[in-house]
Amino acid sequence: MKKIKVAIIVGSDSDLPVIENATKVLDDFNILYSLNVASAHRSPEYVKQCVRLAERSGAKVFIAAAGMSAALPGVVASETALPVIGIPLEGKSLSGLDALFSIVQMPPGIPVGTVALGKPGATNAAVLAAEILALSDSSLKNKIKNYRKKLSDTIIEKDKVLKKSGIRKYISQYQKK
Amino acid sequence: MKKIKVAIIVGSDSDLPVIENATKVLDDFNILYSLNVASAHRSPEYVKQCVRLAERSGAKVFIAAAGMSAALPGVVASETALPVIGIPLEGKSLSGLDALFSIVQMPPGIPVGTVALGKPGATNAAVLAAEILALSDSSLKNKIKNYRKKLSDTIIEKDKVLKKSGIRKYISQYQKK
Amino acid sequence: MKKIKVAIIVGSDSDLPVIENATKVLDDFNILYSLNVASAHRSPEYVKQCVRLAERSGAKVFIAAAGMSAALPGVVASETALPVIGIPLEGKSLSGLDALFSIVQMPPGIPVGTVALGKPGATNAAVLAAEILALSDSSLKNKIKNYRKKLSDTIIEKDKVLKKSGIRKYISQYQKK
Amino acid sequence: MKKIKVAIIVGSDSDLPVIENATKVLDDFNILYSLNVASAHRSPEYVKQCVRLAERSGAKVFIAAAGMSAALPGVVASETALPVIGIPLEGKSLSGLDALFSIVQMPPGIPVGTVALGKPGATNAAVLAAEILALSDSSLKNKIKNYRKKLSDTIIEKDKVLKKSGIRKYISQYQKK
Amino acid sequence: MKKIKVAIIVGSDSDLPVIENATKVLDDFNILYSLNVASAHRSPEYVKQCVRLAERSGAKVFIAAAGMSAALPGVVASETALPVIGIPLEGKSLSGLDALFSIVQMPPGIPVGTVALGKPGATNAAVLAAEILALSDSSLKNKIKNYRKKLSDTIIEKDKVLKKSGIRKYISQYQKK
Amino acid sequence: MKKIKVAIIVGSDSDLPVIENATKVLDDFNILYSLNVASAHRSPEYVKQCVRLAERSGAKVFIAAAGMSAALPGVVASETALPVIGIPLEGKSLSGLDALFSIVQMPPGIPVGTVALGKPGATNAAVLAAEILALSDSSLKNKIKNYRKKLSDTIIEKDKVLKKSGIRKYISQYQKK
Amino acid sequence: MKKIKVAIIVGSDSDLPVIENATKVLDDFNILYSLNVASAHRSPEYVKQCVRLAERSGAKVFIAAAGMSAALPGVVASETALPVIGIPLEGKSLSGLDALFSIVQMPPGIPVGTVALGKPGATNAAVLAAEILALSDSSLKNKIKNYRKKLSDTIIEKDKVLKKSGIRKYISQYQKK
Amino acid sequence: MKKIKVAIIVGSDSDLPVIENATKVLDDFNILYSLNVASAHRSPEYVKQCVRLAERSGAKVFIAAAGMSAALPGVVASETALPVIGIPLEGKSLSGLDALFSIVQMPPGIPVGTVALGKPGATNAAVLAAEILALSDSSLKNKIKNYRKKLSDTIIEKDKVLKKSGIRKYISQYQKK
Repeated sequence: MKKIKVAIIVGSDSDLPVIENATKVLDDFNILYSLNVASAHRSPEYVKQCVRLAERSGAKVFIAAAGMSAALPGVVASETALPVIGIPLEGKSLSGLDALFSIVQMPPGIPVGTVALGKPGATNAAVLAAEILALSDSSLKNKIKNYRKKLSDTIIEKDKVLKKSGIRKYISQYQKK
Repeated sequence: MKKIKVAIIVGSDSDLPVIENATKVLDDFNILYSLNVASAHRSPEYVKQCVRLAERSGAKVFIAAAGMSAALPGVVASETALPVIGIPLEGKSLSGLDALFSIVQMPPGIPVGTVALGKPGATNAAVLAAEILALSDSSLKNKIKNYRKKLSDTIIEKDKVLKKSGIRKYISQYQKK
Repeated sequence: MKKIKVAIIVGSDSDLPVIENATKVLDDFNILYSLNVASAHRSPEYVKQCVRLAERSGAKVFIAAAGMSAALPGVVASETALPVIGIPLEGKSLSGLDALFSIVQMPPGIPVGTVALGKPGATNAAVLAAEILALSDSSLKNKIKNYRKKLSDTIIEKDKVLKKSGIRKYISQYQKK
Repeated sequence: MKKIKVAIIVGSDSDLPVIENATKVLDDFNILYSLNVASAHRSPEYVKQCVRLAERSGAKVFIAAAGMSAALPGVVASETALPVIGIPLEGKSLSGLDALFSIVQMPPGIPVGTVALGKPGATNAAVLAAEILALSDSSLKNKIKNYRKKLSDTIIEKDKVLKKSGIRKYISQYQKK
Repeated sequence: MKKIKVAIIVGSDSDLPVIENATKVLDDFNILYSLNVASAHRSPEYVKQCVRLAERSGAKVFIAAAGMSAALPGVVASETALPVIGIPLEGKSLSGLDALFSIVQMPPGIPVGTVALGKPGATNAAVLAAEILALSDSSLKNKIKNYRKKLSDTIIEKDKVLKKSGIRKYISQYQKK
Repeated sequence: MKKIKVAIIVGSDSDLPVIENATKVLDDFNILYSLNVASAHRSPEYVKQCVRLAERSGAKVFIAAAGMSAALPGVVASETALPVIGIPLEGKSLSGLDALFSIVQMPPGIPVGTVALGKPGATNAAVLAAEILALSDSSLKNKIKNYRKKLSDTIIEKDKVLKKSGIRKYISQYQKK
Repeated sequence: MKKIKVAIIVGSDSDLPVIENATKVLDDFNILYSLNVASAHRSPEYVKQCVRLAERSGAKVFIAAAGMSAALPGVVASETALPVIGIPLEGKSLSGLDALFSIVQMPPGIPVGTVALGKPGATNAAVLAAEILALSDSSLKNKIKNYRKKLSDTIIEKDKVLKKSGIRKYISQYQKK
Repeated sequence: MKKIKVAIIVGSDSDLPVIENATKVLDDFNILYSLNVASAHRSPEYVKQCVRLAERSGAKVFIAAAGMSAALPGVVASETALPVIGIPLEGKSLSGLDALFSIVQMPPGIPVGTVALGKPGATNAAVLAAEILALSDSSLKNKIKNYRKKLSDTIIEKDKVLKKSGIRKYISQYQKK
């Protein structure tokens, strides 16, 4: 059995459509990961089991996503000395400020590296995990550099299309998508 | 050994000057309590031990106070089926909004009854605990009614003093205090 | 006539679809409750009557829900020495911050145990009421423990399904629901 | 006994140094007023008595000031059909947003005319009360016009001093005051 | 030509669907009013003309509604010594906090009595204006008392219907409306 | 080849439907502009190239629009000594507060003149750019004065239509648009 | 008499210690300016006079600073077609969010280029004004480039000192200042 | 010359007293680091030089701290594919929300792992950097586990002292420190 590199834990299965953005990046980078649903408040023992199992399965980095009170990333961080990345998710109220504050404002000694709210944050959690893993994996380092170059190239390409088509035509094409 | 009724847990010893307001109310109501410092993130196992020990010592209600990410009240709630009251504490930043959101925005199924920020909240956590305990303790119920009456009487008394002295004289006396 | 245990008061009948989450939990726990619509600002005398009547009908715990200025939970608390649980509701503006602050920031001496905004809060208000009532009702205590176990089991079950189906298939099934 | 025109109620005697700004304006306009300390949550019956007594004493306008949950202005408004002006006060936390939201977000039908936070609000509550009373008191109307003219003249006078002295000298004089 | 009592000014014609709630209340109270669209920033001279004309037409109270930077109520207040009521309106961003802060935080000396955001505020601006006018109009005072009684009766009536039908049936009827 | 006067840079092509409001104003004023998509974080070198090229093409004023972390306007300002106008754009979360704070809170020495969030801001960025260019272009100055007059006239015209049609009829026509 | 280039207007003389940062920059750049205290709400006519006089005295750019409701920059913008730069000032409450929102959220057509809160904003208002004036003043353009270079050099110099002294020694020296 | 492991860059030398908390942790873990002052807005080229030099000196992880608009961490992240940790710093206004939002809300593809505001964040940035480095350094891994154990032991020790001394005596000792 191949060893995983990243362990993803989400607080609720309703968070999976957001976290899919993270799994896509890891898939693209060919990074093996585990994925668990486990709630810090409703299944605290199971969170610990997931952390223990992930560590034994080779995980080097944790990604934890949660909304509202969002204790999950901090609880994971309290159970492992591996780096933990937290993704705050928006709930029905408070625009995600509740999750953001809960995840980022960790007390001194137990860090959670917090990324942006929602889908951009899910993408970034995976990229940050990849950057960490690349410190001891030069082939992954090259993949990240290519990814970064592609990000830049895509924008420059769009800029060229915009120049050619003009803003009105560009928007009408954009809105079709 | 007499049994405790309320178990107070604070996330840091720097929170004790705020939580003292809760202990004063409990002392006045003659309610026995335990008091622990235990951090959800830095000493998660110890939090559990405190919860277990408090339950065995007879605790009926938990009061948990924490600042910043403020996971403690929720973690206590995840470890017990007893009622948990949470006090959000202000840190150096964000006016306590971080702690308030972390404590109040619990996911469905695991409630924390949240009170006001800081010292007023500490007082109210103790009063709410007393109200809960009074459901099966009619002598305590009378004490609460007296406490409430005294709250009202004190204000009415101040109003009379204000009427007699006028606002300017009242303020100059008030500022001396 | 059987005695009620919980008295629910909502500030407007438009709040009932949210508060239904609380009544479902109480029904599941087989806890008798009364339910009133009464506005702190528009029918202040009627609020008092509801409080008096509920106390005479055996109520041990109050649940009050309101939006915007959200004075109702505090007004109920000012009229009874029983424990009061407050549910802040979102209005059209301010994401419910207005109701949250109004309900949680009670002055020292008159607590309202505040739960999360909206439907998660309605569920939690009922669970917290049940936890309080269970202090003198061991059969209810068992029901709560089962409820908590089921919360945990459900998540662990979902985690197993996720493991088997993988994230993409899980999401497509999730979105059908 | 002369009849009062304005009834001021504050939620706590600690609010009096702020509310003094309102009394100074009323004194300058020679408007008779009553002043009470009464808490919506701690002495709800007494609030009602104050409202009733003020109405019988001739009050035309209410001014109510409170901090934190700040139910007082709304409770006064629920007890009278006279115009009510609310002054939100800052507490230790939340920069007064709690009081502002509680006072301004009244439900349809029971208005509170809310003014600025703290001392500027206290001044403005008195000026707004005077503007209302001046609708049927032409001598008061003249006083308000003079007050407004003086506000304008004072600024223009300061502008002249600034022109003459230059900013550096003006500031050094300003900081002495 | 009959004299108006209230002058309403809105900052944009897109605000009219909100302000209609105010005009309905004034119509119900049989209070004559003028209604103008005039922008503090885009047509400052015209705002002044509207204020002057309204004063000459008999206006006793101004109601001004605006969104975003929302200078209109303050600009009206700077041009008249009559009482001014401000309604903050929500724009596309910031949940109306921009308009609320702009309107309520007036400097000392020039008050705007601010009401709730959006439609509830529009209703309340009209009710507050009516309360002010009723100080010298006992027939209007009676209308307000009836209005207040009806507010209370409606809620109590709804409460009876709720008692009879139960929450589930009530909600299904409520959602039809 | 004619020289441009304004250089617009947006952080993402998804921002173009908002920025179109700026291009319409510039088109109406007959001001030549360049338009680029370039991301401060994903294509930092390309941003610099765009700035350099725009300066060589004659640009006098930069307009930069971005959402979320919104570093683009500040990065443009760090690369040029020409005036930079920043438009904060709303993302999925935080109501655009993230972009607003990122753009407006520049450190001393490197200003960005920030305008309103979203479409109103896009319009205003173009008008502000035109006002700056008009300092040395009297024909443009006249166009701006006409534009301002038209803003005022349009509102006054609407006010007349409102007077004639009444609010109900006006709204029903307004809602058709 | 020499012509001014920049007209500064502040809403209150208590704002002068903040605005001094702007005057220092203008003095360093040898840019002539006028400086007035004039309140949008308390002396609206005088604001207009200041604007008219400044235009006649040659002003090309306005800088307006205000706190709380902060209508001044918008009112200045409504009276002139010259570029207006707004500085939001912090009051006692709300951390300056009231002033920031009031100034930045201008309606389409009447822009105010808003800079950072307080002293950094005052510095930046002056630098932005200088950047605008430099469009037709190449000697000023050079001064700005030198200023920018000095900003950069100062930081690089500090970095060298830090490298030599180490953080502890640097801080102890820093705290002496 | 020994190679560094961590590169710290701060946006201003006034940030050094906060960042010292990070250097203390790195010193305790015996992790070599570089420390630079470089401003994203005032010395953008120098930031790049610092990043390049740090990479050549062996840096595996970047820590960047900044306040207000706080572009520095994002700009560092745009210049390197190594993991970047961002520390938001509080300025005079906005309680650090400006820096927090600017740093955490990075667009997809360019992550910054954000930690808590101010000193707790500085400590945590260093601990997170250590956790990342420990992935390929088992001796460091042990140090972190000891550090974590000490965090826990310290709290448990304090809890014992509290138990012995009681809250009043503990607080009086605490306040002496």
